[in-house]
Amino acid sequence: MVPHLTTALTGPLLDLEQRILDAMPRIEHWLRTQWLTHETPFYASVDLRNAGFKLAPVDTNLFPGGFNNLNPDFLPLCVQAAMAAVEKICPEAQRLLLIPENHTRNSFYLQNVAALLNILRQAGLDVRVGSISPEITEPTRLALPQGGELLLEPVQRKGNRLVLEGFESCAVLLNNDLSGGIPEILQNLEQTVTPPLHAGWAMRRKSNHFAAYTRVAREFAELIDIDPWLVDPLHASCGMIDFQARVGEDCLAGQVSDLLSQIGAKYREYGVEQEPFVIVKADAGTYGMGIMTVKSPDDVRGLNRKQRNKMSVVKEGLQVQEVFIQEGVYTFENMHEAVAEPVIYMMDHYVVGGFYRVHTGRGIDENLNAPGMHFVPLAFDTPCSLPDCAGKPDAAPNRFYAYGVIARLALLAASIELEETAPDVA
Amino acid sequence: MVPHLTTALTGPLLDLEQRILDAMPRIEHWLRTQWLTHETPFYASVDLRNAGFKLAPVDTNLFPGGFNNLNPDFLPLCVQAAMAAVEKICPEAQRLLLIPENHTRNSFYLQNVAALLNILRQAGLDVRVGSISPEITEPTRLALPQGGELLLEPVQRKGNRLVLEGFESCAVLLNNDLSGGIPEILQNLEQTVTPPLHAGWAMRRKSNHFAAYTRVAREFAELIDIDPWLVDPLHASCGMIDFQARVGEDCLAGQVSDLLSQIGAKYREYGVEQEPFVIVKADAGTYGMGIMTVKSPDDVRGLNRKQRNKMSVVKEGLQVQEVFIQEGVYTFENMHEAVAEPVIYMMDHYVVGGFYRVHTGRGIDENLNAPGMHFVPLAFDTPCSLPDCAGKPDAAPNRFYAYGVIARLALLAASIELEETAPDVA
Repeated sequence: MVPHLTTALTGPLLDLEQRILDAMPRIEHWLRTQWLTHETPFYASVDLRNAGFKLAPVDTNLFPGGFNNLNPDFLPLCVQAAMAAVEKICPEAQRLLLIPENHTRNSFYLQNVAALLNILRQAGLDVRVGSISPEITEPTRLALPQGGELLLEPVQRKGNRLVLEGFESCAVLLNNDLSGGIPEILQNLEQTVTPPLHAGWAMRRKSNHFAAYTRVAREFAELIDIDPWLVDPLHASCGMIDFQARVGEDCLAGQVSDLLSQIGAKYREYGVEQEPFVIVKADAGTYGMGIMTVKSPDDVRGLNRKQRNKMSVVKEGLQVQEVFIQEGVYTFENMHEAVAEPVIYMMDHYVVGGFYRVHTGRGIDENLNAPGMHFVPLAFDTPCSLPDCAGKPDAAPNRFYAYGVIARLALLAASIELEETAPDVA
Repeated sequence: MVPHLTTALTGPLLDLEQRILDAMPRIEHWLRTQWLTHETPFYASVDLRNAGFKLAPVDTNLFPGGFNNLNPDFLPLCVQAAMAAVEKICPEAQRLLLIPENHTRNSFYLQNVAALLNILRQAGLDVRVGSISPEITEPTRLALPQGGELLLEPVQRKGNRLVLEGFESCAVLLNNDLSGGIPEILQNLEQTVTPPLHAGWAMRRKSNHFAAYTRVAREFAELIDIDPWLVDPLHASCGMIDFQARVGEDCLAGQVSDLLSQIGAKYREYGVEQEPFVIVKADAGTYGMGIMTVKSPDDVRGLNRKQRNKMSVVKEGLQVQEVFIQEGVYTFENMHEAVAEPVIYMMDHYVVGGFYRVHTGRGIDENLNAPGMHFVPLAFDTPCSLPDCAGKPDAAPNRFYAYGVIARLALLAASIELEETAPDVA
């Protein structure tokens, strides 16, 4: 189960949501058995799109950066789940070294680190933040916008261990997605590093994740007797694309064309009248750069210089070489007349909260993970604030349950993806 | 960590509480390592007494009956902890058979069953309530005072399995403390029965629990460098007491005398000016029957008929034969000018909530678990309702943390007690 949350949607439950709710014991049982054989990521966030007829993940982040956006009411849930997560990675650990992203001037991100730190400390860990940024050469106190400060200390390498001055830890927790590659200082550590290095974007590929997701979705769809497409965005990929040199355009246009006609066929099957679209992303990218919305194969041919620049540079200047093409899912949800996308947070295999990503300037067919978006935290469902709520045997789980289920399917896919892409230990 | 709760106490943290808070990472680490080698009870509630200088458990219930008294805000925490608990007893289970107490006319108790059922269902289990009461001979719907109803079905035994009509489960969850003995229908089942039968009062003894607790408290006291007495009530026991026949009075008076002088010595050491007292209880009793407050060995000699009757009958008419004598802990807490005793609820090894047991007609040296008492649910701490709360790295854990720690020491003691008293499988 997941917390009772409110969503941007009101009105009766949609068919798909209702079907997921009805199958709750079967779903929870199936998920429980999955976690017997698959290792849960330490934490994750999943971006969902709810098109009404279809509810699907569009991105799974293994280094979530928005813990500050969670409703503070969820803090005890986060703490409890963090205790479970810590017991798995390092049950005998008392100290944990947290390694954040290097962007120390992004105060939103610093608040995320502070929120995560708070959760881990409340879980009873002695945690310190070790920066691998070249700018942090001595202990540095950074003021937080809402009061308090964050202490970043320079990480030191001692043999095959990372330490801070006077601080040795059994495990290293990464909140750094390694988009710029795996720094030498993190390689071949004897400490437990979680998530593992191959979960970072230096090695991770969206295509692997969604390939695993497709298999998970198929099994899930069979379980509750639905068409897997209702929870799974179609996808394809192209290797060796160089937008600047116009290499690989044919592959891309071909895949786009194929996907669009598959989506079109599905839309006709379900009587959906909107125009099919796909999202083209860097297969190893993140941060909303290198993403375009495409409604025709022609859209990816003859890109102008500005478009090509946009597509060929992602975070920390990595060149795009592999491209992931994903079925676009229209969002059915909006908030204050702006498009809203739910983001679900998990620690260990527990859903611990979420928030809406809202962007007033964006359309229902665009990516919302972009600079300038607003966040709206999800709140507990009000019916549950009545004193007799816990006592009612027939209290209706609300629509958010379906979001928590789909997010956990993506979590399971991430787990399988990490197993399958783990480098040989030999 | 435990939820942020408010307590009846305001004012600065007391020395002992502060010391426990300061040692948080060390305590959590130690508890984590304990749970590597000891199996957590499925659930438990612990009655605490806070005397200011001393904070100690006075009773540990392995079949908690007050889930309806928990703050509904804690429901997601309960559900998450229930998921963890279920994964341990029967990870592959989808169905669970819940066996409640037989007192189907106690509407408070029925609300507890409904609340527990709700938690388990939200955790994704298919749960039904099977009654072993001779009065339940067909499916019976009982109306709940706050709306809704509870369906009780007669349990059937098929070979070595308990089933309901059309319902087979992998595990049986007991919410029946077996005070009246272990019914034949529950014996030699091949299903997992949790808590195990020897956790029921038919076999359980308070003296075993507190003997284990004393060892746990000693280890804990060493960890945080305090006198173990500050968290451990002194205790003793007498076997073969028959109040009606006045057999065993000498043993009892002797133990009372010894305990009172030990407590007196401790009071002098700590400058406590109150009068020492002890509580005399049935070693296998519960439900606030068979309990007396004693301030002198003379109090247990020459009892009148009424007192003897009270002490010799406990729940379901069991004769008292073994008696447990426990150091009385004055309660420092009160609420609306009435005496208050915190009760902490746990599922698996997580603290999931609690409430105050308040009794206006009772003194600070009396047992509060008696008919007619009032309950006041503990609420989340208000400072944590501010949106920036989760972001503050220095958010102060509040005094409730200490309660959660002491309750978990009692939980650990219960775990060790159950290991040590488990019947030979051979």
